[in-house]
This record gives sequence, C-alpha cells and structure tokens, in this order.
Amino acid sequence: MTEFRSVVAATGEPNGPALAVHGPPDVAAACAAAAAAFDTYRATSRAARAAFLEGIAAEILAIGDPLIEAAMQESGLPRVRLEGERGRTVGQLRMFADVVRAGAWQQLRIDPALPERQPLPRPDLRLRMIPVGPVAVFGASNFPLAFSTAGGDTAAALAAGCPVVVKGHPAHPRTGELVAGAIARAVAAHGLPAGVFGHLVGPSNELGAALVQDPRIAAVGFTGSRAGGLALLRLAQQRPVPIPVYAEMASINPVLLLPAALAARGAALGTAFAGSLTMGAGQFCTNPGLVLAIDGAGLDAFLVAASEAVRSAPAQTMLTGGIADAYARGVATLEALPGVETLATGAQGEARQGHAALFRTAATTFLAEQALGHEVFGASSVIVVCADEAELRAVLDSLEGQLTATLHMEASDEALAVRLLPLLERKAGRILANGWPTGVEVCHAMVHGGPFPATSDPRTTSVGSLAIDRFLRPVSYQNLSAAVLPPELRDEARGDGAPRLIDGQPAH
Amino acid sequence: MTEFRSVVAATGEPNGPALAVHGPPDVAAACAAAAAAFDTYRATSRAARAAFLEGIAAEILAIGDPLIEAAMQESGLPRVRLEGERGRTVGQLRMFADVVRAGAWQQLRIDPALPERQPLPRPDLRLRMIPVGPVAVFGASNFPLAFSTAGGDTAAALAAGCPVVVKGHPAHPRTGELVAGAIARAVAAHGLPAGVFGHLVGPSNELGAALVQDPRIAAVGFTGSRAGGLALLRLAQQRPVPIPVYAEMASINPVLLLPAALAARGAALGTAFAGSLTMGAGQFCTNPGLVLAIDGAGLDAFLVAASEAVRSAPAQTMLTGGIADAYARGVATLEALPGVETLATGAQGEARQGHAALFRTAATTFLAEQALGHEVFGASSVIVVCADEAELRAVLDSLEGQLTATLHMEASDEALAVRLLPLLERKAGRILANGWPTGVEVCHAMVHGGPFPATSDPRTTSVGSLAIDRFLRPVSYQNLSAAVLPPELRDEARGDGAPRLIDGQPAH
Repeated sequence: MTEFRSVVAATGEPNGPALAVHGPPDVAAACAAAAAAFDTYRATSRAARAAFLEGIAAEILAIGDPLIEAAMQESGLPRVRLEGERGRTVGQLRMFADVVRAGAWQQLRIDPALPERQPLPRPDLRLRMIPVGPVAVFGASNFPLAFSTAGGDTAAALAAGCPVVVKGHPAHPRTGELVAGAIARAVAAHGLPAGVFGHLVGPSNELGAALVQDPRIAAVGFTGSRAGGLALLRLAQQRPVPIPVYAEMASINPVLLLPAALAARGAALGTAFAGSLTMGAGQFCTNPGLVLAIDGAGLDAFLVAASEAVRSAPAQTMLTGGIADAYARGVATLEALPGVETLATGAQGEARQGHAALFRTAATTFLAEQALGHEVFGASSVIVVCADEAELRAVLDSLEGQLTATLHMEASDEALAVRLLPLLERKAGRILANGWPTGVEVCHAMVHGGPFPATSDPRTTSVGSLAIDRFLRPVSYQNLSAAVLPPELRDEARGDGAPRLIDGQPAH
Repeated sequence: MTEFRSVVAATGEPNGPALAVHGPPDVAAACAAAAAAFDTYRATSRAARAAFLEGIAAEILAIGDPLIEAAMQESGLPRVRLEGERGRTVGQLRMFADVVRAGAWQQLRIDPALPERQPLPRPDLRLRMIPVGPVAVFGASNFPLAFSTAGGDTAAALAAGCPVVVKGHPAHPRTGELVAGAIARAVAAHGLPAGVFGHLVGPSNELGAALVQDPRIAAVGFTGSRAGGLALLRLAQQRPVPIPVYAEMASINPVLLLPAALAARGAALGTAFAGSLTMGAGQFCTNPGLVLAIDGAGLDAFLVAASEAVRSAPAQTMLTGGIADAYARGVATLEALPGVETLATGAQGEARQGHAALFRTAATTFLAEQALGHEVFGASSVIVVCADEAELRAVLDSLEGQLTATLHMEASDEALAVRLLPLLERKAGRILANGWPTGVEVCHAMVHGGPFPATSDPRTTSVGSLAIDRFLRPVSYQNLSAAVLPPELRDEARGDGAPRLIDGQPAH
C-alpha cells in the first residue's frame, strides 16, 4: 500500500506524518455502528436533534484557527474564502436545526376514519416521513468545509434522522479529521450512540466502493467528477438492493448575454464575467464555462473587456496536483480544436497552479464538436457567438443538463427571456438574471441541482432546506391505536407546531 | 409477427378480430408528440388542468356499460369489482383535480432579497416545482381500470403537468382502447395538444423497451412482475440520460398475529384472513402471502378456521393464462419444499382458474429457504409459526421490502407492537392494525409503496395525492423580473390560494 499523507496544495510537499488508512473492515464496522444507531437516532425529538445540529456547529467553531490553517494548507484556498466557507458550514447546520424544529419535513397527513361511509367505511390513515437509513457522504475537493465532512449532505442527512458515514476527500485529510472530531464530540455531548457519525479516510477508490456496496447503507451523497459519480451510481444500481445516489457531477453553466444588455453594458459585463470565471481558480460547480451571445452591438466590447481581465488574472494554486493536471489537459484540448480561437490566457504560474483561459467559437462549431460542451474544471470558458435567436436556441437545446443558466438582460430583453424560459427550465435547476452563478445562497428557495449529468437526480437539491427531502421516505399507518402510533401522529400532538394536512387541508 | 387479439379470460377464446399492433415508429411518433405538447400542457392554469382531469373522469363514465363488459371479458373479474374499480378510477382523477387546484404541489417558496445583508446582499430567490417531462406508464394486468390506461400513474403524471404515453397491458386491449378514447376526447374537448396523451398497444416486450429508451421520456411508472420491473429499470439506467422508474413489483405483505389477538379471536381471524387471501383470486399487490404467528393459544383455532375457509373457496378465473400457469407453478414449488406442510387447498377448477392454497412451516425452515419469501401471485399464503418474539423478529428481519405489514392485536399486545414498529417501518410502506392489506384507500395519507423489491423507489407512493411528487422537480429563480417569473411566483399571485413559504414561514 502506498503511504497516505496530507499534502500542501501549493507545493505538493507532505504535510505531517503518514496517516492511518481505513480498509474494508473499517467500512463494515462504521456501517454496523450506523445501522445499530439508526432507530435510536431517528427516535430523537425534534428539539433534541436540532440542539445536536447546533452542537456540531459550536464544536466546529470551537476548533478555531487551526481548522482554517489546515484547510488553507490542504486546499490552497485563501483565508478569507475559508473563513466564509466555515460560516456557511455552520450556518447550514443551524438552518437545518430550525427546519427540524419547525417540523414541516415530517409531511404529517391525517385522514380520519369515516365509519359511516358507503359502500365501505374509510379507515383512519396517518402518514409521516421517516429517514431512509444510514447515508454515505463523499466529501468534495473544492469545498473542504461546506461540501465535505460536515457539509450540506451530512447536515441534511443528520437533520432527516439518518446516521452518516463520511468518506473524507483524500485531498484534505487533516481538515476532515478536525471536523470529524468536532462532530464526534457533539455526538457524545448529546448522549447519542457513537454510530450516528462515522469517518473513513484513505486514498483508494476501493474504500468508497466498499462503502456504497455495504448493505446497511441506504443512500449516497456525492459531489465530484462525472466519472466518479457515474462509478458510484453504477455500484449502487448493481447492489442486490439498489439505493439512490445523489451525485453532483458536471455542469458548464451557460451564461446568456441578451442583446439589449450586451448593447448597454458589454464592457462591464466582460469584466464582471472574468471575475466570476477566475474566482477561486474557477473551481466551482457553478463556474460559468459557457457564454452564449447573439452577434451584435456590445459583443466586441464584452470580448475586449473579458479578454483583458483574463490576461491580467494571476495564476492560482489549484486544489490538487491531479486537478491542475486535468485542467491543463482540458485547456490544451480546447486550444487544439479547429474553429476555436484562444481569446486570452492568464498569467502562467508554477506547477500545481492554473491559469485562466478564454475561447471563442461559432455556434455551428459548437454544435459539431461535443468536447466544447464538456466541463473543464477550472477557470476556462468558451464564448459561443450565435447568429440569431434560432441559433442560440439550437445551442441551448444541444446542451446536457446544467446546475444553472444565467440571463443578462434589460427590460427590452424580457420578451426574449420569456420565450427562452421553458427551454432553460428543462435544462437547469436554477435560472438567474443579471448576476453570476458562482454564488449559491443557503436558503429555502435554493436549488443546487439539475438534470443529468449536472446531477444524477434532478428531483432534489444539495443546497438549501429542501435537501432534507433526499433522505426521507413516507410511511402510512392505518388504524393504529394511539399507544402504537408515532407520537407526532397522535391526536394530542396537534398544536406541537408542526404543520399537518387533515383531510388534505392545512392545519397546525 | 404473431396475431394480437383480445382474449376472453375465462376461456382463452379470441374476443373480436386481430388488432393493430404498434411498433417502434409509433413509439417515436407518440414520444415526439408528447415532447411537443409538454410546454403547452405544463403552462395550463391550475383551473384548466383540474377541469381536464375531471373531463377525463366524465368521459370514462360516459362510456357506460360497454367499458365494464369489456373489462369483465378481458380480465375475468366480476361486475361488482369492476364497477367499484371504475368508481375508484374516476375518484382518483377527481382527487387529483382538487389537488391541482389547491396548488400545494407547486411547493412555492420565496426568499426575498436582503440588499442590506452583510458581508454580501442576498438575492431574491423563488422556487417552484415543474413537471419532469413526458411520462411512460405501463398498465397493470390486475387493475384494468384503476392501475392502467387512466390509472393512478396516468392521473398523477397528468396532474403534475406531464404528457403521458401509455403502454397498454396486452391482457385488456379493448378495455384500454375504450379508456384511451375517453382521454383523447377530453384532450380535444379541453383544447389541448393531442400529444398530451398517447396510447401504444401490442404483445411484445420490445414495444415497452423502445418506449423506456426513447430520449424524450423523462420518467416511467410500472406495476407488474419483479422481472418486468427490473428489466425496465435496467433499460432506464443504461440510457445516456438515466431516468427514474417507479416500478411496483413484488410483495408478500406479512400479517402478524400478536398473541392476545390470536388468543381472543383465532378462529374469526382465520376466516377473515382467508377472505382477504382469496378475494379476486388473490391477484392483489397487497395480498397477504405470509402470516407470522407466535405459537400459543388460538393458533390452532386460526389454522382450523383458515384451512376450512380455504378448502371451501371456489376456483376463480385468473387474469390471463400466463398468470394462471405461473400461479400453478408457484404453488407446486411450495408443495414440494421439505418442511412445508400443505394445510389446505381450495376447489380445483378448469384451465385458467386458480385454486387457493395454504401452507404452514416453522420459522427455522422459512429462514433457511429463500423461495418461501418470494411472491406467488394469486391466492397462496404461507403461515410461519415462530417459537417466540426473537424468532418472529428474525423472520421479519429476513424479509425483503414490502408494500404492507399488518398487525392483529389487542390492547395487551401494544407493548410488543411498539417494540416491533421500528422494524416494520424499515420493511414496509404501510403498517395497519386489525384489518387486511387488500383494501388500498385513495386519499392523502396513503402510501402504496415500500422498500425494494416492493417498489424500485421507496421515496414515493403510487396511490394517493402524494403520488404527484413523483413527476415533479424543483427549479429556482434568482432575481428574475416579474415579467419573466412564472406567474405563480410573482408577488401579485399571493392570495391565489396556493400555499407558499416566505422566508421559510407558511403563508397564503
């Protein structure tokens, strides 16, 4: 077995001693503990579970600066970004605590008995959502805090009442270990079984494969590459009992420059676009990797400003050597494509750094060359110039599923936007106007998801309060006596604050 | 190509002339029409869509007795059952009309902008559910009306705003054609594009395979055999763009006789059980194919009464010759198993009829013999006698996922029921007390679903108003102007009756 170490992202140098690596027996032990903890954990009250989530947030904050420093070393991301990411991580745990307390996630429904109904009486039927079971979460490389050990999937699954087994991302094992320790302390402090949270680390794909194949795992959350997500999806589907995989994979996030916006502020849009493109070395799922413009006034100004900003963009350390290499290969592929013009590249850096890259092509070329529609993870983007609305629509129609679609528009573009909206809805999980897709708000109305291959399951989101639904399934109870019914479905629970439907009508 | 005809279930005789059979070009045409109709159909108002669903119900009723007669001939089911099933079919269309009007299915969420928030302003975010796209529905053999052409999946998908392409069950083509005609008349009467509903008929599996593989199909609803469901699931997963399959497949629906209930009314339970077992020749997804009892007072009385009732049960025509043959093979397999006692069999009938069959075995035998846990579709059931609670729990734990689990219990059984409930919840979608699983109420709190292999997706139900969620996915809109926003998400839509969450708080 090769040695497994934490690595300094900027240099590739080892960052401390060799680390213990988990193997199949550890997977089995973590899953057995999770399964054993499941019924106890899911029986916790809403108040107790919410307090536990808040306890995790407090324990993460209590680590203090060592957490930020470990994440900076391992990811190469700057302090201000990671401090913000920690705030987001803690914030989403607290949001889920509020969601758990409010109780709407239980989807309580009561259809009282109708003993006099003809020709047959109606029995008493009551429904609630219960958690699906132990959940496997794969930490992402690009958000070592907010999409990783205690990230969105972990928070949503714990909120739903599911024990979680995290497969930590091998690019940030020290960061992951610190966060896992914080969760374990909260588990203990709240008197929960240790199996509520498990943490597995190691460099091999076999570790994750064993986790997905363990019969006690009921669902999988993953954020990463298309190849990685599809491999896990295949394993999950080939199990004797198939399970859902929520994999967030590949998206190039088309940005549409509508004619009036382009004419009114082409240069400003170009500069702002480059800022969104190069932020964080472009290592966002929602990075704007595709720009669609109808040829016309303002396009040249956009191209000039965007090119200028890209040329002056510094090289940035990428998350891992592997990601930097893959980015360089992706850029080289685009540079070599016939009909694709390299508009600008940013400053070349050292090994493990990425430079921004901007390309331009015609719609006809884009439609003929599949590689132009594939994600290059990093600060690379392709501008597709369309002759008219029909060509713009053809390019959109050719796209695979996306996390986001962005419209830059003025009031006089509204009619065009309305015509395009149905197509955009079929292609993306979030549609935004006059902004950039790289900011993902954690709130109730967020969808961070979308049609395949943006995700493996467009019926859900990985960010925001709706994510709790991923890890729930409905159970119906017919004619159970009050002593046997789950407490929240008993008549006396009415008024506990959780909304319920009685005969289909909202009630509290 | 072999000739395709409607067949009289009772005799196997042809029922009218050879029928036209659809092939791949018809699949492509139906899917193209559905895709072309999608944006128009999903843009219908709640009121218009609800009226359309009610229009389908009215057109089905307007067919009158010829529909009942066709279904009687093709299914062998009796008039009273089919009249009841028609009522259910019409009732669930009307229920979905009410659901569509009420609007909660849209899951509207609005998080207003917070321009002053530090360190970054929050954009305006609004979320709604949109339909997934054209849905393929496979009609079931055992409910020629309520789970077929205009059955639950069709009603839920149309309610969600999805065009539907039905692959009619080859066992009832005339019934299907009559219902398809009713739907088509409603489509025309409500001014909708014809592609909102398509109907394909033919005897080959290739027809269904082509439908699931068509790139325009976005989801699949299926009720039928485990082999059939798994085949469609595999096809759907192997598509370039995988799609969800909601397959309801195999369930043996364990019935637990708890000790006090058994002691108090063993004989009455035995008689009632046999009634549930033999109803409709046992051809229900929720047929009680497994009875679990702890050895003790009342067990003998139960066995005697159940055996007596089964012995006096008449043979009944089964839905198709193939189903009758498969049932006979399944019963023969059970009869031949070592350690399995044949307690009673019903009257032997003619070809294409099934006779009831009741078996008894010990928990140790059940745990050692996988075949005892497999569904035999028809009026066959196995009684497993357990020595104690631990053995009962071991048998339950060994079961695959189920649609239902039933408890027969007295007040003094409640402590045991409470102990068993978490295990039952992990195994089944519906848990009922002191009744029989064969009645499935169409209402808001129903779950007709459950863990694999009862269904391929336990996160949903195929019966009841919650089924609409199968065919929806969330989309988020960020900073869109009112003119571009979908109407239901505009500020002025507040008060339109649909519930919404504003900043996570319920509002109307």
